[in-house]
Amino acid sequence: MQQVQSGNEPRDPETVIVGVDVGGTKIAAGIVDAHGQVAGRIQMPTDIRDPEHTLQSIASAIKTSIEASGITPSRVKAVGLGIPGMVDPEQGICLLAVNLNWQNVAVQRWLEQELGLPCAIDNDVSAATLGESIYGAGQGMQDMVYLSLGTGVAARAIIHGQLYRGAHGMAGEIGHLVVMPDGPLCRCGARGCLEALAAGPALALAAQTAIAAGKETQLQVYQQRHGTIRSEHIFAAAADNDALALHILRQAGEHIAYGIYLLTMTFDPQLVVIGGGLASDQSPLLIAIRTRAAHLLAQSSASRAMLSTEAIQVTSMQRDAAIIGAAALVARANSQHKREKQ
Amino acid sequence: MQQVQSGNEPRDPETVIVGVDVGGTKIAAGIVDAHGQVAGRIQMPTDIRDPEHTLQSIASAIKTSIEASGITPSRVKAVGLGIPGMVDPEQGICLLAVNLNWQNVAVQRWLEQELGLPCAIDNDVSAATLGESIYGAGQGMQDMVYLSLGTGVAARAIIHGQLYRGAHGMAGEIGHLVVMPDGPLCRCGARGCLEALAAGPALALAAQTAIAAGKETQLQVYQQRHGTIRSEHIFAAAADNDALALHILRQAGEHIAYGIYLLTMTFDPQLVVIGGGLASDQSPLLIAIRTRAAHLLAQSSASRAMLSTEAIQVTSMQRDAAIIGAAALVARANSQHKREKQ
Repeated sequence: MQQVQSGNEPRDPETVIVGVDVGGTKIAAGIVDAHGQVAGRIQMPTDIRDPEHTLQSIASAIKTSIEASGITPSRVKAVGLGIPGMVDPEQGICLLAVNLNWQNVAVQRWLEQELGLPCAIDNDVSAATLGESIYGAGQGMQDMVYLSLGTGVAARAIIHGQLYRGAHGMAGEIGHLVVMPDGPLCRCGARGCLEALAAGPALALAAQTAIAAGKETQLQVYQQRHGTIRSEHIFAAAADNDALALHILRQAGEHIAYGIYLLTMTFDPQLVVIGGGLASDQSPLLIAIRTRAAHLLAQSSASRAMLSTEAIQVTSMQRDAAIIGAAALVARANSQHKREKQ
Repeated sequence: MQQVQSGNEPRDPETVIVGVDVGGTKIAAGIVDAHGQVAGRIQMPTDIRDPEHTLQSIASAIKTSIEASGITPSRVKAVGLGIPGMVDPEQGICLLAVNLNWQNVAVQRWLEQELGLPCAIDNDVSAATLGESIYGAGQGMQDMVYLSLGTGVAARAIIHGQLYRGAHGMAGEIGHLVVMPDGPLCRCGARGCLEALAAGPALALAAQTAIAAGKETQLQVYQQRHGTIRSEHIFAAAADNDALALHILRQAGEHIAYGIYLLTMTFDPQLVVIGGGLASDQSPLLIAIRTRAAHLLAQSSASRAMLSTEAIQVTSMQRDAAIIGAAALVARANSQHKREKQ
């Protein structure tokens, strides 16, 4: 996908969508055209004092992004929002978003009144999954899986060409699948969830625990310099061949590979796209994921007939994935509207 | 569901469908009306000398069932066939059925020519899943899972109200999911598949191994009487409180419960229906499945928000499930045809 610089006019002179990625610390927004190209990309801190302030910071990010893109505001036809939490997209309500301190917030109605524009919302991983299926590697595919690796671990599936939510909006929530019953405690209350073993904070915790136990590693330098260890430090140390960093990423990769194996045996997808903050191609994490997944899938003639490891890909959208995904929510809302009118 | 005696006229005087369950040793057929009621239920040995003979025994079972039901043959509008293997339902071809010695057999064309009736075919577990969703516990549900426990272990899902096949027709093939890497060898080539741990032959093998190791059990009597141990002997001994039989069923139940847990975390279904030869309510196997599934699902706040153990049900169709499911293939074929014409 061609890189478009922030501030450039999108290629398509027709209508555009504002895609907004709402995070607990920052809000990213951008103007997305019909080809999934992004302009006016901006980032602002999230004001989480209370829902009213958070909504105001979202509205402000949207207006700033439109200005930054330099497009005529009348070309903006709608806004799409990806939210890290449980969302009812039909009612336009965020049921629960722990990092935003939100519970039953009528996001869609508030923003539509504030902006005078139609607005579509959904969970951020659902948004990224739709983004991959409409603009990314999953274009035209009936059945694909998107796996988000970052502060959390979560998957979503496109099935029969549509985002699959499941009976409680939880389909693909493998971040809280217990794969090591005596493993580390997860914030969900269970022990040994995939998220407690392989998400960003789990990697950082593993490094801190090893350092506290006296392990020699470059990561000590990062800890002294930053007062803490973040997952990006582990990737940097691993690129420098630090043994502990490599070990942590390989272990995490094996757990994630098991998650991909399970998703394959149940969903039998054409493609698995990996996105999120920890997804970067050729990293030791990705190499460990591919190697272990290949081993697991090779065990049985049944699984050999399913996913090939070439079909495990890293998103090509990189940092724009969340913004493009949020914009894809509007594309989906429109196509559903068309189907209902038929 | 009301029991209809073999030979009775179905309640609905309109058209009926012949449902055929093709097994490696026997063929079961019956006449299914629009309410899923079965008449003319018959069973015949499967002639597996070669595909031609097998097809002829299927045709013969269909004709015998129509005669046994006493209905006017002109009321039969179509035939549905569930086949234990890989099936391309659109081409009407069985790609592979190990127990029938079939490879690329054009079943649909052969039967349509022989019988002069439209014919629909699919995998037997897919057929049973459709049967549950059209006539059984899953009526009207958008998202459900069917788990077949018998000579094999396999699951299928109804998603967005339709049978979900996946990219290679393998979605839900958790029978060959490895859950114990150093477990017993499976016929698929892997070790410790769910099927190698919990299907009928696995239960029998566990009993034989324990007896050979000198374990005291009632099952020795069955072995002496029948020359072998079959899964039904284990259920009978367990009902008589035999410690080994109870232990085998509990172990198998724990493995199956893990399969249900995985299906829940990925598909987030409204309902899981258990069918197949090993499915009987209140059996020690089912009690172990429910107990262990409740434990697994209670671990995390995420999984607690999904399936309740009340939503793990045993099929109410019992021995008719396979016949009704095969008939459901015709109902599906018709509704697809209608959609395509719209």
